[in-house]
Amino acid sequence: MEPITIVLFGATGDLAKRKIYPALYNLFLDNKLPRSFSLIGLGRREWTDASFQANVEQSLRDFSRRQANDPALLKEFLQAFRYSVLDIGQKKDYQKLLLLIEQREEQLRIPPNRMFYLSVGPEFFETIAANIQDSGLGSANGWKRLVIEKPFGHDLQSARDLNQKLSNAFAEDEIYRIDHYLGKPMVQRLESLQQTNPVIQALWNNRHIANVQITANETVGVEERAGYYDHVGAIRDMFQNHMLQLLMMTAIQLPQKSASDKVRFKKKQVMEALEPLQKQDVGASVIRGQYEAGSIQGKPVIGYTSEPGIAPASKNDTFIAARLQIDDYFWRGVPFYIRTGKRMKEKSTRIVIEFKDPSKQTLSASEDLIAPNLLVIEMSPHEGITLQINTKDPQHKGEFKPIHIDLHPGEKDFPEAYENLIHDAMHGDATFFAHWDEVEMSWAWVEPILEAFEENLVPLHPYAAGTNGPVESDALLAQDGYHWWFDTKPEQEIEAEEGKQYAYNTNH
Amino acid sequence: MEPITIVLFGATGDLAKRKIYPALYNLFLDNKLPRSFSLIGLGRREWTDASFQANVEQSLRDFSRRQANDPALLKEFLQAFRYSVLDIGQKKDYQKLLLLIEQREEQLRIPPNRMFYLSVGPEFFETIAANIQDSGLGSANGWKRLVIEKPFGHDLQSARDLNQKLSNAFAEDEIYRIDHYLGKPMVQRLESLQQTNPVIQALWNNRHIANVQITANETVGVEERAGYYDHVGAIRDMFQNHMLQLLMMTAIQLPQKSASDKVRFKKKQVMEALEPLQKQDVGASVIRGQYEAGSIQGKPVIGYTSEPGIAPASKNDTFIAARLQIDDYFWRGVPFYIRTGKRMKEKSTRIVIEFKDPSKQTLSASEDLIAPNLLVIEMSPHEGITLQINTKDPQHKGEFKPIHIDLHPGEKDFPEAYENLIHDAMHGDATFFAHWDEVEMSWAWVEPILEAFEENLVPLHPYAAGTNGPVESDALLAQDGYHWWFDTKPEQEIEAEEGKQYAYNTNH
Repeated sequence: MEPITIVLFGATGDLAKRKIYPALYNLFLDNKLPRSFSLIGLGRREWTDASFQANVEQSLRDFSRRQANDPALLKEFLQAFRYSVLDIGQKKDYQKLLLLIEQREEQLRIPPNRMFYLSVGPEFFETIAANIQDSGLGSANGWKRLVIEKPFGHDLQSARDLNQKLSNAFAEDEIYRIDHYLGKPMVQRLESLQQTNPVIQALWNNRHIANVQITANETVGVEERAGYYDHVGAIRDMFQNHMLQLLMMTAIQLPQKSASDKVRFKKKQVMEALEPLQKQDVGASVIRGQYEAGSIQGKPVIGYTSEPGIAPASKNDTFIAARLQIDDYFWRGVPFYIRTGKRMKEKSTRIVIEFKDPSKQTLSASEDLIAPNLLVIEMSPHEGITLQINTKDPQHKGEFKPIHIDLHPGEKDFPEAYENLIHDAMHGDATFFAHWDEVEMSWAWVEPILEAFEENLVPLHPYAAGTNGPVESDALLAQDGYHWWFDTKPEQEIEAEEGKQYAYNTNH
Repeated sequence: MEPITIVLFGATGDLAKRKIYPALYNLFLDNKLPRSFSLIGLGRREWTDASFQANVEQSLRDFSRRQANDPALLKEFLQAFRYSVLDIGQKKDYQKLLLLIEQREEQLRIPPNRMFYLSVGPEFFETIAANIQDSGLGSANGWKRLVIEKPFGHDLQSARDLNQKLSNAFAEDEIYRIDHYLGKPMVQRLESLQQTNPVIQALWNNRHIANVQITANETVGVEERAGYYDHVGAIRDMFQNHMLQLLMMTAIQLPQKSASDKVRFKKKQVMEALEPLQKQDVGASVIRGQYEAGSIQGKPVIGYTSEPGIAPASKNDTFIAARLQIDDYFWRGVPFYIRTGKRMKEKSTRIVIEFKDPSKQTLSASEDLIAPNLLVIEMSPHEGITLQINTKDPQHKGEFKPIHIDLHPGEKDFPEAYENLIHDAMHGDATFFAHWDEVEMSWAWVEPILEAFEENLVPLHPYAAGTNGPVESDALLAQDGYHWWFDTKPEQEIEAEEGKQYAYNTNH
């Protein structure tokens, strides 16, 4: 493994503490860090190397998936960490940083391979990139890479502006845009499941798939991010990036063992084939919602506009459901339903592939109890890939029951998304990072929705906290003859329906 | 459930003891026998009702899959059993039988629904059928059915003769020809798996399947059946009936929920499309083998021609392997490999569906380690249906490992084949019985092989007991680029190859 220096902007911040240090530590435990590994943490706080290391150690105790209880191992890991105070706007601080990096590189006898990790607000991206460029931090005889977190722009124009500025300092193949959904183990499994299994590949098209449902529901509200969230909404916070990335990963066709550029090339093809929306048509396929007071797991919660920091008249979206169409040879006619919301009944992130039943039309009503085949990629609350098939009920001849088959039995302890992503970035593997083309095309696709929301061309549907979102979200699928899979009903509805019989369908 | 009288010829015999009584008892435990159920056992021995019932009870103790330890239940079950001495050739004995049946029907107040179960040698079929006809046993005001065991004929002409004679007494839809392989739970699962799961159905054709392998290997030799077996060989004992039935059940296409006549109609279509062999071409696709001395699980065993009752110069086949082609829209180009043998290395009955890997050609040698997808229907030594798919190895990024997914998890205690079949026959469901058309077409297909063997146009390959049969059987698949799946090697070969590396492939 190539020696590397990680230069971490925002080393005292929340993301570093919760995700980056634990990820590095778990990579270290798995022998996936280079032997000569160096990390320089940067921040405004006046920390020393020792206090920095103590903070890193504490973050492992609080957030690592594996315990940090071997003192010798821990010491070995922590000795790679150095700290330097840096004011992002101060050019001289970058000169000081350069000296420190060079000194460490010399000490460790490693080449100047530098990965700049920007774990800071997007408003600093431009300044940091320019200063890296100007200070000569990036013009050494090794390689340089830039790792940045979302958000990448606020709309199409701002994203283009930002990318233009980053391009002055870094080439596209040096930029690693993190979308941590792409690092999730099950998303990566989905790709390899298709890639290595002809039986799955054969089914991956509109001949066999009826619809695709991508859900990312949260039970939490805006939490401490009210000011930021009220400015962006679900459409920018989740839909433009994570949800469209999941759509791309589901819809790509990988007919052979593919290199990283193949995956990204295929994702671009999906975005190119995604049917564009016109502003005036947004209402027909996009449902906008905002939560009202309700209850989550028996506890009352307030409505969105009552949250501290939210304007009482806010029309911000906390829920989006949309029907998308990919107009290509593989997916023409297969609706992709996407939804994401806050204060939903249950926390769940999953992709459900519902397969067609070609015999459906020929069955009589009483025989229509055979459940559809489903492939379910679940990312939260549990991780797993299951296949729903029908089996003969051994107790009742002639009857069938659907069962879920775990396609990855026996595995429990999956690496975290950040472990996968940081590991890939260190190895220069950009497969699971967002390419600029994808980012630009996502913003372009979302733009008419942003405008329609802005101009209030689309109704804002209220939904009670603790439900499955506005009823219009269910109607969106019902008009095509489908329903959201695995939604459980609020308790009062279940009571009201008691005594009715439902076969197989967990949604009704 | 309709009341029924089972008239069992051969009530003192081995099959009745090992299979029929235990099957009836387990159906009884499952509440699958009619409330008014009556069985009349027939045999030459001078048994009384009481000694018959005692014998039935003993057979349950020896052979039932569930214990017969509730005296009250046992008593209730046994009181349905009556015995009558019958000499198959004596017309007056049938008159006596008729009186007994009528008396019991009156006693139990049940209609004259009579199922004649011929658990006797095929040489008696004709006489019994004629006597049933002549005595008026079958001309009552209820229905009558005939259940017969194999063998059904010795070749095409003798099978036709036999059927002609049975037809005088029973219509085709009154005849239930048992092929107990069709009663095996996994064979019946295979049909429903395809029928109720579009994802399986979609794969069930030559676009996705590379080849099909049907194996029925035994470790036993001829046992006590030497005289019979030396006259029929593997081709008549296993291939013409069980193996071709498994082929039909694998190859049928069930595009919708099908009634019983649909399944049999589809099976007939398969046989119609099975490419006929010419006598002179048999050698190119059929391997004939005979076991020599060897060892089974470490114990030495003698060769076939040394077995008691076998002629030292016998050229009888104890092993058959064959490549068959079904020339229709679904299966053109997919070889079906069938083999069955005695004194093989391992006892195993299974169907393996090997799926195509369309990306195979484009992979480099080092990437060629991805195992094919397999669907495995295992009937012996264990029952189960599994799917082999590739998953990402969590420990080694970029590597894949094949895993077997159990498609029927959590089930262990399957009903025996005879339970399924007797239950179906009592209900008049002929789905899993061999129709005359199938029997006739199977004999017609096998006829050139019988002739080629008879005229010694095909070499008789010796194989050591305890191996996987003659090497020519492996060569049959190797010339198409395939190999038999899940064969384990004799120990001496494994030792010789130690140190060589094999990836995934359990056959090498």
